[in-house]
Amino acid sequence: MSFDQAYIEDIAKRLERGDRRALARAITVVEAGGEAAQNLVKLVYQRSGKAHLIGVTGSPGVGKSTLVDALVTQMRQADKKVAVLAIDPSSPFTGGAILGDRIRMQDHTLDPNVYIRSMANRGHTGGVAMATYDAVRMLEAFGFDVVIIETVGVGQSELAIASTADTTILVLMPGSGDDIQAIKSGIMEIGDIFVVNKGDLPGANKSATEIIASLELAKLPSNWHPPVLVAVSENGEGVDKIWQAVQDHRQFLTDSDMISKRRLTKIKAELSDIVAEIARGKLEQSMQDSACVQELLTDIVDLKLDPRSAAASILSSLN
Amino acid sequence: MSFDQAYIEDIAKRLERGDRRALARAITVVEAGGEAAQNLVKLVYQRSGKAHLIGVTGSPGVGKSTLVDALVTQMRQADKKVAVLAIDPSSPFTGGAILGDRIRMQDHTLDPNVYIRSMANRGHTGGVAMATYDAVRMLEAFGFDVVIIETVGVGQSELAIASTADTTILVLMPGSGDDIQAIKSGIMEIGDIFVVNKGDLPGANKSATEIIASLELAKLPSNWHPPVLVAVSENGEGVDKIWQAVQDHRQFLTDSDMISKRRLTKIKAELSDIVAEIARGKLEQSMQDSACVQELLTDIVDLKLDPRSAAASILSSLN
Repeated sequence: MSFDQAYIEDIAKRLERGDRRALARAITVVEAGGEAAQNLVKLVYQRSGKAHLIGVTGSPGVGKSTLVDALVTQMRQADKKVAVLAIDPSSPFTGGAILGDRIRMQDHTLDPNVYIRSMANRGHTGGVAMATYDAVRMLEAFGFDVVIIETVGVGQSELAIASTADTTILVLMPGSGDDIQAIKSGIMEIGDIFVVNKGDLPGANKSATEIIASLELAKLPSNWHPPVLVAVSENGEGVDKIWQAVQDHRQFLTDSDMISKRRLTKIKAELSDIVAEIARGKLEQSMQDSACVQELLTDIVDLKLDPRSAAASILSSLN
Repeated sequence: MSFDQAYIEDIAKRLERGDRRALARAITVVEAGGEAAQNLVKLVYQRSGKAHLIGVTGSPGVGKSTLVDALVTQMRQADKKVAVLAIDPSSPFTGGAILGDRIRMQDHTLDPNVYIRSMANRGHTGGVAMATYDAVRMLEAFGFDVVIIETVGVGQSELAIASTADTTILVLMPGSGDDIQAIKSGIMEIGDIFVVNKGDLPGANKSATEIIASLELAKLPSNWHPPVLVAVSENGEGVDKIWQAVQDHRQFLTDSDMISKRRLTKIKAELSDIVAEIARGKLEQSMQDSACVQELLTDIVDLKLDPRSAAASILSSLN
């Protein structure tokens, strides 16, 4: 896809006026990436950075989408404009849930102050992360108060995306062993709020107790003590408490000036993704264009030259 | 960790003499990355590239490890020296299977011609991929005939790692819906051999039939027609046929000269990871050292400058 500059400028203008169709197009532009995306981001960047970003992550099947749905209901009652970005799984094996999940969201589709969009994870990891950052900017420029980033997969990249939010909700369910895994693997640190979903299943309180106990032992990265909440998203039970916790966390971030620290961390991660992508792009180009680089490739395949030494040569020729 | 050059040279020598302790150390060195890893790879690179690399991938719970275990038994009967690299999940949520899986492998731990090693996915995606490429080289330099790369997770990165093998086995199980997902998501293309594992469960033949039907419709990337095999790894049923298919595929690759094409693709992917890593490293360094880069960061946070424009400035200053 290619978009001309007049089109991009028109989208940027209409986006800031609150035109939903322009919003959809803007996200399509940033999803496609490239120069058009870059120009569009540049145009709206000053109006970004205003929403409260909430990451929702957890294993497939724990009910993240149902929880998000219930949270959106709460936020709408508080008259917040809410956008949901559902990041499709990086796993091709677990892609099945998406359609069903999106159908559940239908409750909100007629509400003009709710916007739901799936983003596919095409290509390499860095790609979707970057498109996500930029999509969030479009949603902020449009004027959403809250942007929920729901990651469907549970890989490092999804986790990275979720944890670049201001507030990260880690969703678990009783008896899945997820609680234990979360504790062992040290990902407790990324959760600002823990939700034991499907709280009507046996073992919910036990799971919650175990998480609380391990949080007491954990070295927390700030003075925020992550609440551990039991909820039944299916019928909305306990979701009000999650929404309250989200607001409390937002307040904590503002009061402690953590919000700017977090945003700096996020910017650093994004810059890292961008320079990596640029480097990959340059290499790709040189592998197509340069006879010299093609020779190096042959040498590697023929075991005459190791890849790292070749990379060093290629990089010096790229500059 | 830091290793001096004399230590690295000693490891390289002993590795090529078939010293198992040196092998363990060599993999530890490449896992740690950095200059030592680079130097070690350089020393053994000429002796790499000889093994048949088999990727085994699929969702958690389909019985990949049991299948690998049974395949190793087959390969040992054919007097092949076999190494297994188990790539730990990129997902912190599904890490639980590992320990149990490794315990199952105990059958082979006393066999000096079998080597099993888990590799943790630390840090970002590129990290484990690169460590895996280099670990394979150590195993090849040591003299293994076959290296099985078992990915435990199912993210894009694990899939990428598995598909850089010469032969990729995609493992599914009946009734999980994985077959349908595999078909839908187009990952059929990466499988050279399909295994419906746990073939004693209901629906195994139905799953196999569905995969066969969709393979007939799929545009295959070569003249190889991926066999779809039903197996019960737990008791070894059908595993001989998988081993036969692996050998057939190897023969096909050699006869059609696909093996060098595949290795070129793999080298390109590795180079891309390497240059991305180098670019990230340079950025990281400049964010610490350069007052100018720190100022740019502040400008981004203050919404005065968008990240891509900043990245362009930073990159030009890095060169």
